[in-house]
Amino acid sequence: MLITKLERFIQEDIGPDDTSYTILPETWVYAVVIAKEDGVLCGLEEAQQVFDYFGLESNSEFKDGDLLQAGDMIVKICGPVRDVLQAERLSLNFLCKMSGIATLTARCVNLASGVRVACTRKTTPGFREFEKKAVRYGGGDSHRYGLSDAIMIKDNYMAVMTIEEALKAAKQKGSFTKKIEVEVSNSREMLSAARAGADIIMFDNMQPGEIVECINTLNDLGLRNHIILEASGGIVDTNITQYAATGVDVISMGSLVHAQWLDMSLKITTK
Amino acid sequence: MLITKLERFIQEDIGPDDTSYTILPETWVYAVVIAKEDGVLCGLEEAQQVFDYFGLESNSEFKDGDLLQAGDMIVKICGPVRDVLQAERLSLNFLCKMSGIATLTARCVNLASGVRVACTRKTTPGFREFEKKAVRYGGGDSHRYGLSDAIMIKDNYMAVMTIEEALKAAKQKGSFTKKIEVEVSNSREMLSAARAGADIIMFDNMQPGEIVECINTLNDLGLRNHIILEASGGIVDTNITQYAATGVDVISMGSLVHAQWLDMSLKITTK
Amino acid sequence: MLITKLERFIQEDIGPDDTSYTILPETWVYAVVIAKEDGVLCGLEEAQQVFDYFGLESNSEFKDGDLLQAGDMIVKICGPVRDVLQAERLSLNFLCKMSGIATLTARCVNLASGVRVACTRKTTPGFREFEKKAVRYGGGDSHRYGLSDAIMIKDNYMAVMTIEEALKAAKQKGSFTKKIEVEVSNSREMLSAARAGADIIMFDNMQPGEIVECINTLNDLGLRNHIILEASGGIVDTNITQYAATGVDVISMGSLVHAQWLDMSLKITTK
Amino acid sequence: MLITKLERFIQEDIGPDDTSYTILPETWVYAVVIAKEDGVLCGLEEAQQVFDYFGLESNSEFKDGDLLQAGDMIVKICGPVRDVLQAERLSLNFLCKMSGIATLTARCVNLASGVRVACTRKTTPGFREFEKKAVRYGGGDSHRYGLSDAIMIKDNYMAVMTIEEALKAAKQKGSFTKKIEVEVSNSREMLSAARAGADIIMFDNMQPGEIVECINTLNDLGLRNHIILEASGGIVDTNITQYAATGVDVISMGSLVHAQWLDMSLKITTK
Amino acid sequence: MLITKLERFIQEDIGPDDTSYTILPETWVYAVVIAKEDGVLCGLEEAQQVFDYFGLESNSEFKDGDLLQAGDMIVKICGPVRDVLQAERLSLNFLCKMSGIATLTARCVNLASGVRVACTRKTTPGFREFEKKAVRYGGGDSHRYGLSDAIMIKDNYMAVMTIEEALKAAKQKGSFTKKIEVEVSNSREMLSAARAGADIIMFDNMQPGEIVECINTLNDLGLRNHIILEASGGIVDTNITQYAATGVDVISMGSLVHAQWLDMSLKITTK
Amino acid sequence: MLITKLERFIQEDIGPDDTSYTILPETWVYAVVIAKEDGVLCGLEEAQQVFDYFGLESNSEFKDGDLLQAGDMIVKICGPVRDVLQAERLSLNFLCKMSGIATLTARCVNLASGVRVACTRKTTPGFREFEKKAVRYGGGDSHRYGLSDAIMIKDNYMAVMTIEEALKAAKQKGSFTKKIEVEVSNSREMLSAARAGADIIMFDNMQPGEIVECINTLNDLGLRNHIILEASGGIVDTNITQYAATGVDVISMGSLVHAQWLDMSLKITTK
Repeated sequence: MLITKLERFIQEDIGPDDTSYTILPETWVYAVVIAKEDGVLCGLEEAQQVFDYFGLESNSEFKDGDLLQAGDMIVKICGPVRDVLQAERLSLNFLCKMSGIATLTARCVNLASGVRVACTRKTTPGFREFEKKAVRYGGGDSHRYGLSDAIMIKDNYMAVMTIEEALKAAKQKGSFTKKIEVEVSNSREMLSAARAGADIIMFDNMQPGEIVECINTLNDLGLRNHIILEASGGIVDTNITQYAATGVDVISMGSLVHAQWLDMSLKITTK
Repeated sequence: MLITKLERFIQEDIGPDDTSYTILPETWVYAVVIAKEDGVLCGLEEAQQVFDYFGLESNSEFKDGDLLQAGDMIVKICGPVRDVLQAERLSLNFLCKMSGIATLTARCVNLASGVRVACTRKTTPGFREFEKKAVRYGGGDSHRYGLSDAIMIKDNYMAVMTIEEALKAAKQKGSFTKKIEVEVSNSREMLSAARAGADIIMFDNMQPGEIVECINTLNDLGLRNHIILEASGGIVDTNITQYAATGVDVISMGSLVHAQWLDMSLKITTK
Repeated sequence: MLITKLERFIQEDIGPDDTSYTILPETWVYAVVIAKEDGVLCGLEEAQQVFDYFGLESNSEFKDGDLLQAGDMIVKICGPVRDVLQAERLSLNFLCKMSGIATLTARCVNLASGVRVACTRKTTPGFREFEKKAVRYGGGDSHRYGLSDAIMIKDNYMAVMTIEEALKAAKQKGSFTKKIEVEVSNSREMLSAARAGADIIMFDNMQPGEIVECINTLNDLGLRNHIILEASGGIVDTNITQYAATGVDVISMGSLVHAQWLDMSLKITTK
Repeated sequence: MLITKLERFIQEDIGPDDTSYTILPETWVYAVVIAKEDGVLCGLEEAQQVFDYFGLESNSEFKDGDLLQAGDMIVKICGPVRDVLQAERLSLNFLCKMSGIATLTARCVNLASGVRVACTRKTTPGFREFEKKAVRYGGGDSHRYGLSDAIMIKDNYMAVMTIEEALKAAKQKGSFTKKIEVEVSNSREMLSAARAGADIIMFDNMQPGEIVECINTLNDLGLRNHIILEASGGIVDTNITQYAATGVDVISMGSLVHAQWLDMSLKITTK
Repeated sequence: MLITKLERFIQEDIGPDDTSYTILPETWVYAVVIAKEDGVLCGLEEAQQVFDYFGLESNSEFKDGDLLQAGDMIVKICGPVRDVLQAERLSLNFLCKMSGIATLTARCVNLASGVRVACTRKTTPGFREFEKKAVRYGGGDSHRYGLSDAIMIKDNYMAVMTIEEALKAAKQKGSFTKKIEVEVSNSREMLSAARAGADIIMFDNMQPGEIVECINTLNDLGLRNHIILEASGGIVDTNITQYAATGVDVISMGSLVHAQWLDMSLKITTK
Repeated sequence: MLITKLERFIQEDIGPDDTSYTILPETWVYAVVIAKEDGVLCGLEEAQQVFDYFGLESNSEFKDGDLLQAGDMIVKICGPVRDVLQAERLSLNFLCKMSGIATLTARCVNLASGVRVACTRKTTPGFREFEKKAVRYGGGDSHRYGLSDAIMIKDNYMAVMTIEEALKAAKQKGSFTKKIEVEVSNSREMLSAARAGADIIMFDNMQPGEIVECINTLNDLGLRNHIILEASGGIVDTNITQYAATGVDVISMGSLVHAQWLDMSLKITTK
């Protein structure tokens, strides 16, 4: 994380006039961050960068992506109590939020049994970098980062141009280094996209049954190869196995990054 | 929202080389953001600031804090399709996330029947301003913003000083303009805090029954007046009524800002 | 101080093309910052952060808040002469300005014999953090930092609402973690504020005699407890004792942070 | 002023959670900034930029540099009371501080009867741009802005090189577009500087009598032409006329920018 | 261009104390930017954003990508002479540099007769966005923007892993939305890359003859389809036709963005 | 270079999601930057700052300004291969671009045989600091940095005021620390400037013969002393000797900073 970004986060939590800092003694303490639930760890790198910034020593037997059990001592810290308490909340916010996302992702990846699970651009403004990273540490795919990455021709494009026109323009004006994805909602649109050379086709808000039919059509026409198929829209942990069974290559879920936080706390252990 | 902040969010989503912008025609379109669930609206002010930044006209019959029903047309937009699609995701991310928080807050406020409901500092780094604002629009209390606001003497302080020492130092070194809150986990600590002049006492991870006993003790000793009592720790929508019944003035919940997003979408309506 | 902030200050003083740096030899030197007047030291922490940034070793037998006598060697520095001279002016600007404020504050605190002395928001744009910090190191109170801290209902509010309305709204819409202060200019307004539950009442531009009468009234009505009383407006070192004698708890003075700078200089002592 | 800079100043004063904004009604008001002392106006441009940022209409019959009399209505504002009160303190801080500097400068310029009066680099970190501008509006000279402007060979250079060496290096390595100034403390150093081709010679902490003797020497040797002479060090309004009488071209005073603020206030005039 | 970015550029050119601004009269003038050479226009959008920032009216009969002839009046401006002269240099720097790149690109695109011409990451730090944009307006391809876009396995990777290992890891850990490119320097490496599923293969510093042989091999093995072939390294306008004739799909040239500037000047036409 | 600036450059090249970083092993490697052409080294300081930022050890037997021969190993690096490859492009971009400028400057300085060679403000937005620095390391003069340095009265001023008016205003309103330069296009303007006290006169787009005549006139009138003469406009390496022979003190060339890049590459040498 860039120092300029880290400092914005620190400034947000500490503000210009932290009285706590001055009422605490100059004592050095040990402290530990403890997991209070099972899950997949993420945000440790960020938390340690926070501790470094405050001049605190920290060390951990874990690394991002590791499995956690309730009670695990994730990272141990040593330094002046004043600095430990200034670093506490921000490092926990990274750890709990990112581990929550990694944990949910890992669960969905497991349910998808081999089909890739990806997040979307439905992220918290300013925090996308960390949300997408947590998805990766949970075993998921970060999908495109923003509008400048792979080109995605979405349903709203249809209001002003055809799929063929959009693909033609994308191939002409987009860089040869970028893939082109088309969002479709039925078999007809899918065939337009496939024939016009889409690299990725996304089935948007379609039922598993409809998707299966579409894939059969593609296979029948010999168009299945060299196209990546993605299902998206309303997929959650309770219906993901049905989508995984359709034969798509990727399932994307906006809700991955809206996961509940994994519970952890920081405890001062000794004076 | 500061322009410098808004531009960071825009840069995050758009990046340096948005091909979509160039493949779309220069056509002007109308578009509308539609609610797909009932809830409390929040983030409209931010969304409209995004639209303004892109030079889009927008108008709405709603304002932040209003009740939404599935199907409501929240805001109408007009402008070049290229700009509408650059503004789409960021404005929706504000609307869906902030409305999700406002909606959950409103539900908890309702359950708390008169007891104030507050959030905490367990927020997404860089997005606290908007998460706390959404809590307020849901009828909740934003609690202290960061370490520089009200002084909070937390359990970890006990490792290095007594409640009495901490309160004495806080009164001496903190500004007279700040309230002092003490986190307690039992009756003994509560009495120390009350006698040493805490403005607010927070019952941390205590059961409703324990809290009732504590409040009775305070009443018996004539210490209840001029102290604000807060319950915190493990309170969610399924147990909030029990905490509300204890007699505390405030219930704080970290999970308010981790609410599920309210579903909305942007649709282009006419060429 | 955040690195991003420090770098803005450095850039301001050094600019893009410092010829001095290249005409000086690469010699290492010792240097010392010497006090040329008695006073209270402040800004040492900032000065040492400047020296650190330039890779200079520095050490001091003093700490912020210490008394200085003319001739005291405040901090000794060692490093390449080029870097010493790039760091010189900025570190001195912190030291001289902040020590000037701390020194004036300490004098006023002494004159106020027990009554708290506070500064205001009449600060240099961009430098408030350091001006308020210097007031604290001089023994003063930093008052609220900005509009987001304690709520202050000022005289201009009266043009659009009554004190009662303002207090009611503040209690309802403001967080329970914030104190509410009301600015009054006569006894009637004071009583409105006290009865409507203000935490702090500020006597604005009132004579000591008027303030005494007001406090007597409060006492007579049994309203003095649990209210903090502040005097403000036109108070300077020559009349502060009169205000201190009125019985208020706090005296606030905008002029504290406009103090004359304490004179210091940096001298290179040996090649 | 750059918007990015303005927003930093606004953020400093308003913070993330201004309750006042929400407790005030949505009423529109008129307001006026009134001078409470005589002086020279400065900071109006900045104040109006603040008003613009908040969407307030403002107009003034004055411009920066104009003379003010106590009671003058400097600028009139119109807009929602919420925004007027958010803009109030920052605009006044610019106006009062910058007008204070312009006023003191004008007084010193007047006393110097034709000798140019300049400020120095002893400025508030982050605020130099405005302090130097105020000096110019008071009729003074802003001197060099930072280390990258004119090259100044100061007393501390003497610890590591001679005046001749320094001037030679400055002419060789510095740009032909920059003047070279040498700080001297006696006649011998002055002659070294004059003979080695200094563009400006500054008499540092020397008595008026010594300076007169130095200038006589220069005249006698035919070296006075094409050199600008500056007096600096310990010059204040009470001794400036003596320095002005020595025959120097410029008098520089660090204290110009430490001037007392000019008193003004903002009053809401009508609902 | 983000306002925050524009302001950094403006600050660089204008600095804190522009005397020219104050010595010029307040007169309004017309001005015009004139092309002094033939070429392809680029940077007009940026130049007009600069004019807007300074409050100048500007209009143009051209748009980025248009052909220019020496003598063409590219854009006409109207406003206070002070502002015209503050905006002059920055707007010309955008126009002349970006048009120079677009012009060279257009020439190379023409020489490549149908083969796509791309730039690289050999760009000026901080200015890549504009250099790549100019390549696009000259008809070229902007290639990947930075390390986060398409994955490129370069020669230096071979020191620590095989092409097969790198491709396997890239497919596993990279997003399905990104293409994978492999840099090869001979036929053996090319075949490894093609068989392991590279999307793009770049012939690095190879002679046209070698490339032809490689492509023949690919064709013979039936591996040519679904792979994009790129030539790079030492290609300039004098040898580009030879590379274009090899059968590659893309030619990339670091030197595109190092093009000579297209000459233009701004002239004030009338008082 | 400020950390905040460095981080902007790093962010530009790396972006938010660098897959390469994760597919590479954690192996440590040695690497070396090798010159592939002869030239003057510049940008080493910046490159080493980049390596430092990524935690890489680097050392070099060269320093900026040294002569390079093709094959020279400029700087050796040691660290994790992931970080070496993240640092590679940015450090090379500094080295190749800045060395290209220093090399061209050195060639022109050599051709000018004693006449000073300077660059102009025709620089890449955001990169001026480094372009001007490279000119200095090539033995050139960086000329004024921006509008706030020496005052330059340019041809466009003539549309709204006379040279005499402009010089009078500049002397009155500009600081005594700044030189004043006037751009002239004929003998008449030159004499106006010389008589009105210009410090520097620039012959703009004039032929060598015309310049010689002008200088003769100045000499004849006894005005040559104390004025610096500069030639500018259309001067390149092929005609610089003619301009150098005219008797001017300085030749300025916008094209210095548009130099071709010096070729270098980074090679990993051992696992």
